Amino acid sequence: MAWNVYLAGEIHSDWRDRIAAGAEQAGLDIEFTSPVTDHAASDDVGVAILGSEDQGFWKDHKGAGVNAIRTQTLIRNADVVVVRFGEKYRQWNAAFDAGFAAALGRPIVTLHPEEHTHALKEIDRAAMATAETPEQVVDVLRYVLQGTLPDGA
Amino acid sequence: MAWNVYLAGEIHSDWRDRIAAGAEQAGLDIEFTSPVTDHAASDDVGVAILGSEDQGFWKDHKGAGVNAIRTQTLIRNADVVVVRFGEKYRQWNAAFDAGFAAALGRPIVTLHPEEHTHALKEIDRAAMATAETPEQVVDVLRYVLQGTLPDGA
Amino acid sequence: MAWNVYLAGEIHSDWRDRIAAGAEQAGLDIEFTSPVTDHAASDDVGVAILGSEDQGFWKDHKGAGVNAIRTQTLIRNADVVVVRFGEKYRQWNAAFDAGFAAALGRPIVTLHPEEHTHALKEIDRAAMATAETPEQVVDVLRYVLQGTLPDGA
Amino acid sequence: MAWNVYLAGEIHSDWRDRIAAGAEQAGLDIEFTSPVTDHAASDDVGVAILGSEDQGFWKDHKGAGVNAIRTQTLIRNADVVVVRFGEKYRQWNAAFDAGFAAALGRPIVTLHPEEHTHALKEIDRAAMATAETPEQVVDVLRYVLQGTLPDGA
Amino acid sequence: MAWNVYLAGEIHSDWRDRIAAGAEQAGLDIEFTSPVTDHAASDDVGVAILGSEDQGFWKDHKGAGVNAIRTQTLIRNADVVVVRFGEKYRQWNAAFDAGFAAALGRPIVTLHPEEHTHALKEIDRAAMATAETPEQVVDVLRYVLQGTLPDGA
Amino acid sequence: MAWNVYLAGEIHSDWRDRIAAGAEQAGLDIEFTSPVTDHAASDDVGVAILGSEDQGFWKDHKGAGVNAIRTQTLIRNADVVVVRFGEKYRQWNAAFDAGFAAALGRPIVTLHPEEHTHALKEIDRAAMATAETPEQVVDVLRYVLQGTLPDGA
Amino acid sequence: MAWNVYLAGEIHSDWRDRIAAGAEQAGLDIEFTSPVTDHAASDDVGVAILGSEDQGFWKDHKGAGVNAIRTQTLIRNADVVVVRFGEKYRQWNAAFDAGFAAALGRPIVTLHPEEHTHALKEIDRAAMATAETPEQVVDVLRYVLQGTLPDGA
Amino acid sequence: MAWNVYLAGEIHSDWRDRIAAGAEQAGLDIEFTSPVTDHAASDDVGVAILGSEDQGFWKDHKGAGVNAIRTQTLIRNADVVVVRFGEKYRQWNAAFDAGFAAALGRPIVTLHPEEHTHALKEIDRAAMATAETPEQVVDVLRYVLQGTLPDGA
Repeated sequence: MAWNVYLAGEIHSDWRDRIAAGAEQAGLDIEFTSPVTDHAASDDVGVAILGSEDQGFWKDHKGAGVNAIRTQTLIRNADVVVVRFGEKYRQWNAAFDAGFAAALGRPIVTLHPEEHTHALKEIDRAAMATAETPEQVVDVLRYVLQGTLPDGA
Repeated sequence: MAWNVYLAGEIHSDWRDRIAAGAEQAGLDIEFTSPVTDHAASDDVGVAILGSEDQGFWKDHKGAGVNAIRTQTLIRNADVVVVRFGEKYRQWNAAFDAGFAAALGRPIVTLHPEEHTHALKEIDRAAMATAETPEQVVDVLRYVLQGTLPDGA
Repeated sequence: MAWNVYLAGEIHSDWRDRIAAGAEQAGLDIEFTSPVTDHAASDDVGVAILGSEDQGFWKDHKGAGVNAIRTQTLIRNADVVVVRFGEKYRQWNAAFDAGFAAALGRPIVTLHPEEHTHALKEIDRAAMATAETPEQVVDVLRYVLQGTLPDGA
Repeated sequence: MAWNVYLAGEIHSDWRDRIAAGAEQAGLDIEFTSPVTDHAASDDVGVAILGSEDQGFWKDHKGAGVNAIRTQTLIRNADVVVVRFGEKYRQWNAAFDAGFAAALGRPIVTLHPEEHTHALKEIDRAAMATAETPEQVVDVLRYVLQGTLPDGA
Repeated sequence: MAWNVYLAGEIHSDWRDRIAAGAEQAGLDIEFTSPVTDHAASDDVGVAILGSEDQGFWKDHKGAGVNAIRTQTLIRNADVVVVRFGEKYRQWNAAFDAGFAAALGRPIVTLHPEEHTHALKEIDRAAMATAETPEQVVDVLRYVLQGTLPDGA
Repeated sequence: MAWNVYLAGEIHSDWRDRIAAGAEQAGLDIEFTSPVTDHAASDDVGVAILGSEDQGFWKDHKGAGVNAIRTQTLIRNADVVVVRFGEKYRQWNAAFDAGFAAALGRPIVTLHPEEHTHALKEIDRAAMATAETPEQVVDVLRYVLQGTLPDGA
Repeated sequence: MAWNVYLAGEIHSDWRDRIAAGAEQAGLDIEFTSPVTDHAASDDVGVAILGSEDQGFWKDHKGAGVNAIRTQTLIRNADVVVVRFGEKYRQWNAAFDAGFAAALGRPIVTLHPEEHTHALKEIDRAAMATAETPEQVVDVLRYVLQGTLPDGA
Repeated sequence: MAWNVYLAGEIHSDWRDRIAAGAEQAGLDIEFTSPVTDHAASDDVGVAILGSEDQGFWKDHKGAGVNAIRTQTLIRNADVVVVRFGEKYRQWNAAFDAGFAAALGRPIVTLHPEEHTHALKEIDRAAMATAETPEQVVDVLRYVLQGTLPDGA
């Protein structure tokens, strides 16, 4: 079967591209999905389509609704959810996505630098694997789909 | 992935065609489904197939049963449910479909003129987005599938 | 067991009181629940508690959210949902509640004047019983709990 | 019915006490539950009971497992989940709990200072109400249980 | 905990009384529920409460709806479902109730004379136990609640 | 979308062929599934594959288990379940399948001669449509998929 | 709230008594449930109640069915499931119960000697905590219910 | 439809190959899936990808997490789960998988030598069929998909 893998979280680095490239190189039959990673579009989508707002709260509310149509549908349809926490920002939506996936029984892989270990302990506990690099995530996916360890392992 | 979008509600204007045309123009990979929009067929289907009835209540009951096979199955299979309320009629079935979709966790987009805002507040609250024109719905779907804002936004 | 019966819909007549009084007289072990039936409080609750809004849409949105905490929780906890449609108003929230209850598998009893038969056909089809008077609803509940028909039947 | 309300999130201020006191004063029939709010106990519970660990990751992992027995069970049993984000710390577990509650269909009330509005937009969007003070949460709960607005509103 | 045991099926013999008496004698903490066993009331309830019908089909339809409010609710709330098939009648509703209980994951005990073994094979296969006498059902329930075998076993 | 329609019940007449032929003629995109309709094979499968049995009960039990792998899987995967009751036999498995489908929320169409109306009232009540001929079932499916009434209606 | 804790697995040592005694001493509001721990009764219950069998397979099958009524119901109703693996026997039913609880989302605590660590790795991974002594399980439950660490920790 | 069949359990003999070969010879439209059957890779995967561990418990924990991504996803996506218990080892993960599949309502076929009958009684009871040879499993699958008995039966 083809696998659906949702890549949640941080949108400021190239980690999604690195996972996709690694998976392609390994010949994995995976359809990757993700939130909209164009930060400006993501922030503006509500008012850009559905009408302007004076209050920041409602501007955000409108945009978050449109984004949730995409993210919650893709998480429901995913076989595996990878959640990335970067060095900066609060990234509460990444943690929210992890909780959402956990309650649905979707297996989670977390991806974050070691420095976040203590702050992310509840989410790492809900995950099946915790990685520090996108390449480790590729290795996990290759094993999950093909049953093979990385070269040299 | 291809998305399934169910277009519920009002059947007297061309809003479904406008959404389908806009989605096609935008190159969106969407399969649209809908209730039977031939009003006479929808009203008569029960007695036309399963035998005539003297009482209006049972004629309606028979027809509503056959229609529900279609509508409830399509809502269960949908990724997104758009619910349209027009200017006329009570359209209780549109509101029923919205409640049905909400309890199943399907994301809802409502589509109605501004004048219904107060009467539809519970349903708009259960929706992820509220639009006034079919073109806005197309814009929402384009963003959800492709992550792009409308031109000029 | 005690039964939980949620009384959804129209809030301008005394139908809830008549059902509760009839149930008490019949000695039925039922806990009735309902939405907030104080119309002004229901409309104002969002801004009264969470801060004022300039736009009617957001005032309604805030209020509908608070009301939904109550209504959706009570419907989830109900054994039976009675949905009343009165002569006036669009009552889309009543139809929404019916759809919500139907998708959750809660048995529904509809209560409305005969004139709404055609407009309510989808909802009546999803119901286990359709009554025209609160007293009929009491009779249904007495039979469901005690297995007895009304006197004289 | 008695309501179960789970109070998730920040454990460094007295917001839980203020909500509980306000609810008691209002005579609300609510059982409040919460995570363990003794920070040191929460951090140490894994190794204190199940054996020491050299690696911080596994110490946290053990502790998070024991805490999850409590938190996930209480969220599953809750009618309403209040999620508080304070001024400090990353509070990813609060966001995780919100996602978990959302996927289970539990109604959420968020509680946070205005400054977090943009960072919390996805979670506020998944909530039925967003408050800035514990007193507003009490007012929401009073309305939900009793249908009454705050004095003076 | 107290157990809820639903007694489905045949209503023409005293098997329910024998199970209830045996359970009481054994001191089992069980709340037994059942469909309405007054055959005439069960057949007439729809038209007696909700208005007369000319067609037998609709008379039956109305009555079956009211009965389903009771039976489906009680099956959903049951811990164990006992389904009795007697010597006579087609008893399709008993088989329907068994299928309904099976899909919900409720454990089933079937109770029928040996002569029905072949005709009931699908339903016996879905059951956790098949008994021929009400006393055996009591013995099963005693073991399930108390862990003790019948005297002399 | 292609529809999956499961044809449950009576295996002694050609009703499945008539429905399939009618659907093909109407150009309906339906995959029909059914239980094994070779009566002897269905009865013998357990002992033929898994070893002989002295007791009829266990022979039936073994066979019913193997058949249930097929039938329960196909019902879970079906969009619509048609349940046919013929003139003869008790057909308890047909009624069981109907109950199983009902609890899963699958729309049901019953198919039986008028003489069974009273005995089948609970199952007809759980169905969305009740037909007397296979051709009516084809007409229902055509309407459900294509929205068109039979010629001449 | 009172907690329901199911104690699955090994029945040859006094670990259940030690947990119950420890919980009582700690004043924990827990209702403990368990399978029938009388080994002979558990093995014989099927034939003792429902009639003798020549074949060991069917004797076991009958008994396992009756036991499953108890065990599966109690696991479904449990807040926490403790699964104990002892030194001897294969204890496949303990592992089965753990898988059953995991798929239902019930939090699991495993209890076994260190020597089984490798053989039980899949089950320990699905658990929220792994203990070696009943006293550790009591400590986990005390923390979960009361938020306090063991004395001296 | 194509069927998905997950082959759980023992990884030291060629039973999976024999089932796959038999199914291919019979022309069955089945996609077989399985855990990773390379024992060394399965044991080492956690530390090989995610970093070494000093403690055997955590090495196993890491590896079991990665394996669970594969196994739990495949069981959720399976139509039928075959669970094989061999002559050696404790094979608790096979029993765990059976319990997991049972709680999800997936039909189970067990495959084991007769000597394990008593020890596996709970799991055989939860299964729809119990086989002793891979060829019997092929026969079961052929019947389930094609409705035909083995030659000579």
